[in-house]
Amino acid sequence: MTTASFKEQWKQGQERALNDFFTFLKFKSVSSEPAFKEEMTGCANWLVAHLQQIGFETELWNTAGHPIIYASHLKAGPEQPTLLIYNHYDVQPTDPDNAWNSKPFSPEVRGGEVFARGAQDNKGQCFYVMEALRMLLESDGKLPVNVKLCIEGEEEVGSFSLAKILDEKKKELQADYLAIVDLGIPKPDIPAITLGVRGIVTLEVSVQNSRTDLHSGSHGGLAYNPIHALVEMLAKLRDPSGKIAIPNFYDEVAEVEKGTISFDFDENEYEALFGMRPTGGETAFTPLERAWIRPTVEINGIIGGYTGMGFKTVISATASAKISCRLVPNQDPQKTGRLVAHFLEKQAPPGITVKTVVYPGGGMAARTDSSSKGIQAFAAAYTEVFGKPCRYILEGASIPIIPELAAASQAEAILLGLGLADDNIHAPNEHFGIDRLEKGALIIARALQLLAV
Amino acid sequence: MTTASFKEQWKQGQERALNDFFTFLKFKSVSSEPAFKEEMTGCANWLVAHLQQIGFETELWNTAGHPIIYASHLKAGPEQPTLLIYNHYDVQPTDPDNAWNSKPFSPEVRGGEVFARGAQDNKGQCFYVMEALRMLLESDGKLPVNVKLCIEGEEEVGSFSLAKILDEKKKELQADYLAIVDLGIPKPDIPAITLGVRGIVTLEVSVQNSRTDLHSGSHGGLAYNPIHALVEMLAKLRDPSGKIAIPNFYDEVAEVEKGTISFDFDENEYEALFGMRPTGGETAFTPLERAWIRPTVEINGIIGGYTGMGFKTVISATASAKISCRLVPNQDPQKTGRLVAHFLEKQAPPGITVKTVVYPGGGMAARTDSSSKGIQAFAAAYTEVFGKPCRYILEGASIPIIPELAAASQAEAILLGLGLADDNIHAPNEHFGIDRLEKGALIIARALQLLAV
Repeated sequence: MTTASFKEQWKQGQERALNDFFTFLKFKSVSSEPAFKEEMTGCANWLVAHLQQIGFETELWNTAGHPIIYASHLKAGPEQPTLLIYNHYDVQPTDPDNAWNSKPFSPEVRGGEVFARGAQDNKGQCFYVMEALRMLLESDGKLPVNVKLCIEGEEEVGSFSLAKILDEKKKELQADYLAIVDLGIPKPDIPAITLGVRGIVTLEVSVQNSRTDLHSGSHGGLAYNPIHALVEMLAKLRDPSGKIAIPNFYDEVAEVEKGTISFDFDENEYEALFGMRPTGGETAFTPLERAWIRPTVEINGIIGGYTGMGFKTVISATASAKISCRLVPNQDPQKTGRLVAHFLEKQAPPGITVKTVVYPGGGMAARTDSSSKGIQAFAAAYTEVFGKPCRYILEGASIPIIPELAAASQAEAILLGLGLADDNIHAPNEHFGIDRLEKGALIIARALQLLAV
Repeated sequence: MTTASFKEQWKQGQERALNDFFTFLKFKSVSSEPAFKEEMTGCANWLVAHLQQIGFETELWNTAGHPIIYASHLKAGPEQPTLLIYNHYDVQPTDPDNAWNSKPFSPEVRGGEVFARGAQDNKGQCFYVMEALRMLLESDGKLPVNVKLCIEGEEEVGSFSLAKILDEKKKELQADYLAIVDLGIPKPDIPAITLGVRGIVTLEVSVQNSRTDLHSGSHGGLAYNPIHALVEMLAKLRDPSGKIAIPNFYDEVAEVEKGTISFDFDENEYEALFGMRPTGGETAFTPLERAWIRPTVEINGIIGGYTGMGFKTVISATASAKISCRLVPNQDPQKTGRLVAHFLEKQAPPGITVKTVVYPGGGMAARTDSSSKGIQAFAAAYTEVFGKPCRYILEGASIPIIPELAAASQAEAILLGLGLADDNIHAPNEHFGIDRLEKGALIIARALQLLAV
């Protein structure tokens, strides 16, 4: 089989494929909301039935959280390598609902794009994987390599159940290659494989002064306003050049081999997409260096005092902020989180009580080597399908389960996907192109052939 | 009549007085909430009936907002001065309701204190004024001076209707003395008259960068986080000594004559009451200098990004803060507000859009002179009733209507009251002592006698 014949096969089956994809999208599989528990189960059961129908053996791993689908097709023979493919079927909440142009769980095609929650992240990318397997099995009656699928239901809430079950399921997950199909490409016409993601740690800081809120007239000049304390503390996190001013913060940062990675970045295109120029981060680095190979400290939320309509002349008793760090290779999440927390505690003005909580978990950065056989096979598939040489890129976001899953499966991680920056994942009007569904299926099918020995 | 005979008269009437006071307190006269419109009208009508029953002629001034009660008793003769007394019958909202130990509009006496919303601010202080007038009229059949009452229903929301009607009602409001009975004393056993309040101006600042919220992984290091921009801007408002770092901010601040004012302050007592030491404000000044004769810039609220349960790794598109300044004599509210706004606009990092709104209105600081005849009469009454010399103090809070009402009535303002710092006004479990209801009635009654020529 060649890319051209896969293309023909996709064309024949596209109508049925879109029907199946829409069924998948209609499940309101929002993992964070207990109200959608049944929709989660319904979605998991549909995946099991769908994979069985394609020809896979399936298991449903029940957990304290949402079930994990495990499926396998291990008939390529012991001489062939085993590929474990990771996806997730849970999606982000849909709020604000009134910002959607069509209902988030009623998929709609507009201009060649399927609009629905999960259309890209990650049901779209999961679906083209399944379509690739179906095409191979329909045309050849077998797969060129042994294939295992792990489709979890808690990626959007921290992958806790999967992380917990990894040890117990080591045998099932054992593989030579681990494809994480949850990433993207820089532009619609530029094929790329992701050689790494940043790690993450999250924390909260809260400050308190008086026992209760105070009148800002009677106490203004007496009480040290906790909001002032907090903004003064937080303003010290970075110096004027954007460098993180926390002592020892960069100590563990490993020198990054830029090697084959493409750091091309178009500031005007970025501005057109997001309405701002890339003025954040350390001025000593280029935009994609800042987003990919430099760590960050980012305030993700802040609240204190009166924030409703009109005005209330109050000195709040408390104020708090949520902070995350994106980490680069070698930085330990918990250690880095504690560095930030201790720094903030030390900046507090006298009398202000500071509490910090470094959330457990987080995740290390992940890096893979473009010269490995697995990456080379997928890169060749991208190149064939796009008709352009495949680039290597990095991703600034984090997928904390990657290093853990790689360790449990003892496989080499390969970070893949066809997401685009303006797919509106985690936002209203999420969408994914039918052209990318096709390209994805073709790439996966071709890569499986190229992985075979 | 002497203080002793007033005391006896109060004792005789206390049970009936408390009944009336409770009726007054039961009206849910929350001026800020449209849902309580009828309760506001009910409360105004009750006041009219109550004042008529005491012997006053009344008018209900209808406004675009809540009605104003005007009442007068002008039978002391043209040679006697006229005293205009200002109170308000509207109260603050009661939230958080679950923090109240008894229902806010079901007054309850515990340990000699009446607990209810408005028990002090300002129904308690309004009520003892009315009791004083009743006692005088019951015992003498007349009042020693001509008395006018102005009881408004929008003090807690900015006194807009009263400010608007002042010009039209100049004749009615014309007086020699204007008693604002909405203030306090430093401690339960220390009588004091307030010689001034600070002014106020309020503003908002909001910052925006990207069009929509962004993923903090993909965009961290690219996007200048608006929350960082905001905290960096706000952190520049004050220098490390607590001095406001805005150029020209102190230019108009007039040198304050400390004169007869007592700046006594017990830091340990303050800590016992509020759970913190007075570490705010400019280190170059004493606590009460900072609260009374120095201006402030105070962040009253801040919000940005994700502030709910758990975590969301978002870079918010926007962030905003509410800011107020307390002003000292000679500082113009609007001019000062614009100084702060322009300063913040100038601190914004490149690319960050800043919007500021200086709210219209606000109010100048007010000052009165302790040597005036009106102040002397009230000071003598305080001294008699407390059996201790009356002190002169200032107040850090603001009553923007004072200078406007003083101008309209052409009267000398006298700032009075028996509030205490721990009465929990504007907070759950507001309370006012029955002993202070009595003292208040005695002070007003005696002062009226002392004002007569």
